[in-house]
Amino acid sequence: MKIDLNSDLGESFGAYKIGMDDKVLPLVTSANIACGFHAGDPSVMKKTVDLAVKSGAALGAHPGYPDLVGFGRRKMAVSPADVYAMVVYQVGALSAFAKAAGTRLQHVKPHGAMYNMAAKDPALAEAIAQAIYDVDPEIILFALAGSESVKAAEKIGLKVASEVFADRSYQEDGSLTPRTQPGAMITDEDASIAQVLSMVLKGQVTTLSGKVIPVKADTICVHGDGEKALLFTQKIRKALQENGVEIAAAGTFLK
Amino acid sequence: MKIDLNSDLGESFGAYKIGMDDKVLPLVTSANIACGFHAGDPSVMKKTVDLAVKSGAALGAHPGYPDLVGFGRRKMAVSPADVYAMVVYQVGALSAFAKAAGTRLQHVKPHGAMYNMAAKDPALAEAIAQAIYDVDPEIILFALAGSESVKAAEKIGLKVASEVFADRSYQEDGSLTPRTQPGAMITDEDASIAQVLSMVLKGQVTTLSGKVIPVKADTICVHGDGEKALLFTQKIRKALQENGVEIAAAGTFLK
Amino acid sequence: MKIDLNSDLGESFGAYKIGMDDKVLPLVTSANIACGFHAGDPSVMKKTVDLAVKSGAALGAHPGYPDLVGFGRRKMAVSPADVYAMVVYQVGALSAFAKAAGTRLQHVKPHGAMYNMAAKDPALAEAIAQAIYDVDPEIILFALAGSESVKAAEKIGLKVASEVFADRSYQEDGSLTPRTQPGAMITDEDASIAQVLSMVLKGQVTTLSGKVIPVKADTICVHGDGEKALLFTQKIRKALQENGVEIAAAGTFLK
Amino acid sequence: MKIDLNSDLGESFGAYKIGMDDKVLPLVTSANIACGFHAGDPSVMKKTVDLAVKSGAALGAHPGYPDLVGFGRRKMAVSPADVYAMVVYQVGALSAFAKAAGTRLQHVKPHGAMYNMAAKDPALAEAIAQAIYDVDPEIILFALAGSESVKAAEKIGLKVASEVFADRSYQEDGSLTPRTQPGAMITDEDASIAQVLSMVLKGQVTTLSGKVIPVKADTICVHGDGEKALLFTQKIRKALQENGVEIAAAGTFLK
Repeated sequence: MKIDLNSDLGESFGAYKIGMDDKVLPLVTSANIACGFHAGDPSVMKKTVDLAVKSGAALGAHPGYPDLVGFGRRKMAVSPADVYAMVVYQVGALSAFAKAAGTRLQHVKPHGAMYNMAAKDPALAEAIAQAIYDVDPEIILFALAGSESVKAAEKIGLKVASEVFADRSYQEDGSLTPRTQPGAMITDEDASIAQVLSMVLKGQVTTLSGKVIPVKADTICVHGDGEKALLFTQKIRKALQENGVEIAAAGTFLK
Repeated sequence: MKIDLNSDLGESFGAYKIGMDDKVLPLVTSANIACGFHAGDPSVMKKTVDLAVKSGAALGAHPGYPDLVGFGRRKMAVSPADVYAMVVYQVGALSAFAKAAGTRLQHVKPHGAMYNMAAKDPALAEAIAQAIYDVDPEIILFALAGSESVKAAEKIGLKVASEVFADRSYQEDGSLTPRTQPGAMITDEDASIAQVLSMVLKGQVTTLSGKVIPVKADTICVHGDGEKALLFTQKIRKALQENGVEIAAAGTFLK
Repeated sequence: MKIDLNSDLGESFGAYKIGMDDKVLPLVTSANIACGFHAGDPSVMKKTVDLAVKSGAALGAHPGYPDLVGFGRRKMAVSPADVYAMVVYQVGALSAFAKAAGTRLQHVKPHGAMYNMAAKDPALAEAIAQAIYDVDPEIILFALAGSESVKAAEKIGLKVASEVFADRSYQEDGSLTPRTQPGAMITDEDASIAQVLSMVLKGQVTTLSGKVIPVKADTICVHGDGEKALLFTQKIRKALQENGVEIAAAGTFLK
Repeated sequence: MKIDLNSDLGESFGAYKIGMDDKVLPLVTSANIACGFHAGDPSVMKKTVDLAVKSGAALGAHPGYPDLVGFGRRKMAVSPADVYAMVVYQVGALSAFAKAAGTRLQHVKPHGAMYNMAAKDPALAEAIAQAIYDVDPEIILFALAGSESVKAAEKIGLKVASEVFADRSYQEDGSLTPRTQPGAMITDEDASIAQVLSMVLKGQVTTLSGKVIPVKADTICVHGDGEKALLFTQKIRKALQENGVEIAAAGTFLK
């Protein structure tokens, strides 16, 4: 039994610093690296790729909407054609840094509003999957488990890793409880770890309403934005390993 | 005897249109496509790559400084490390559109202030050449004949096409007369064509001061920003062909 | 009986040119000048303000979303607080050019997606009206007739000019037929002019469904993006004047 | 005997945080607030203006070059006309937030490369001074003591506060030792404070070469980017007050 741990990295921009990339990298197997639209700049991308290669984490592009001031978190009424082009662009840019470092991309994980909108919109989901496939059909899409993004990748023939969250509660339809609703975030660490173990070991999650539903878990999203987040990631790692789960990059075990 | 004709393309941005790309493409063998920093956006890049592929022109990235409002023409005090990263980024982005179209880049031609600064600054020139080499060592650099950029490419082992200009006068040291000086532009079309023929056929150019100096000509920069420019490009093509020069993409004849 | 004619101006950006500002300015009484977010740049703003002052048109800020590549036409999930701040910012920037030209702003007309979203969203509408009021309570808001924007201005105590469109059909609730629906655009010039005359002279418009509804018309939006648009604006002017309507800046007749 | 203390504030951007604005504001009399070009965004500007008003610091605009990734520190080959327009724009934008907060700007201090280039270039210096004067002739320019910027302000009739630095050494011509040269920074706190006292009390500074030259000191630039900087600012305040110098906003004592 294997699971991937992924984290968003390379989110600094010019003089602006975000994240503790050097501390989170040793804890994860897949690095989602910002590509200059919602965060990151070319120099930060180079530095982050080099750091990730050194740590042994697999490289992924983390494309977002062109909304630096909103950190790519604001929904934008973009067309599928626009999203296709912005994903090709950003995946290409990060691929070039990977090549310059002597390696290649393992995966692509869309960021923020792009991730969330694609999860529910088949046309956006297909545009993203097609863009990745057209740049490199070997790249794996990281997508919300059970979402339209997973379906689009399967339809197009793109490999896909189903992503689950430790600190978010689930609805009966398998979607995440929106952050605007009570109970969206799981703040109790033990409850989070129990949820992770259930998802990974049993392929099940207990929804906010108390129902047990199936969920596919190939990769878990963890955070590196503070000491507390780092400690929690270490706890997740320990709990998984104590339960016989091997932590490995998605590309090593996804068929 | 062969020569390449190149032109800057894909300079539109969002609702903003520049250039007559569909009309200039049939006249050139190499397309320098803007990469979103000084001009162009992801959707324009996709459209331009598709158009160039259809026309048969070889694809090139045209990276510039991150200065959209200045169209990349304003000198900026960027470090070699910054330029390295911005070239990797932009070359990667355009390469991805080329891949999505089933092909690859032939060349990279830096734009505006980046081109001009690198021509005189060995550190910037090396940063650019190294960036291209690290992304793909088969790509050809298009660089001002006799400039530091040519030397940097040769030093690094990157293929380089020496670029000459039909409408600019030359100084005794082989540099272009700065636009701020009288006589910088050659406005007489016959004089321009005579200069082109001399450079291509004899490897010589007569400087503004009247001296004859050697010049290497692999590719000629032509413009597509108006009916007059298109007509002039047709005249250059005709003059070259009547003198037995074959017009071909640099990648087909550069050793 | 008086009516204002307004047009969007100053939409060029750096090397990119849009519009025929010098030709449309003599035909309108109010100039909506882009403020650098969706279009325009500081140098273009200065030039456009100077041109408008020379033509005698009243000056207005035309603030938009920070989405240059989308020309401010894409809906963005911005908060009322964000919109408040971006309107204060842009209105202030254009006001400074007005001051430097020895005059002041008459009005503010939000652009594109900001205009359309505010028309239906009371919270956004109030944020915009409050932003304008806080910068200068004498400024007039140009807003879609009958919209939430008009109500917000009235609630806050901001003067408001109800805007109508010559080339758009209306729904029974007074809203514009969405561009995605058939019949949204009125392409017949005589029908457009008849609609304008009915709105201005009788305060009535015939909806797409054939019903006659009341509409308040203080200002008409006209376009300057081509010879055809300019000719049509001249026809509207002529029709209005032949029917005894005086064309004047909103600030001269709004109570 | 009076002196102003100024600090750069409002440099955060979207999700990116820089500075300890709430801690430095009580220590300074003049706040230089970033205007969205090199740092800051509309929401940050609103928040910073409100915070500064609450602390009692006088408000100033801190305009910079349009180079967010370079934090406005990279020289750009901008024309005086471009700089004029970008200063009008940014001063207007910040003025509007001041108005919305019921107050007005005391001063303008150009940022980074714009400040440094203007200090040596009379044409840029005049463009900046004229831009400020045209927006509001009562605003004070904060400019490097003895620089072209001071001369330009005096020529145009704009009030100017001569700025000195505690942690930078001076050359015999009154300019700051470039950061690239040894001895540019004064790292010893006692030496810094001695330099401040000499400049304020005697109007003299000892250059890096050991010569004593005259210097005019109306305002001192202090930093708020860390606990150490805050402590040092407190030491400067204490040393000044113990020597009978009153710390007050420039606008209260500049003739």
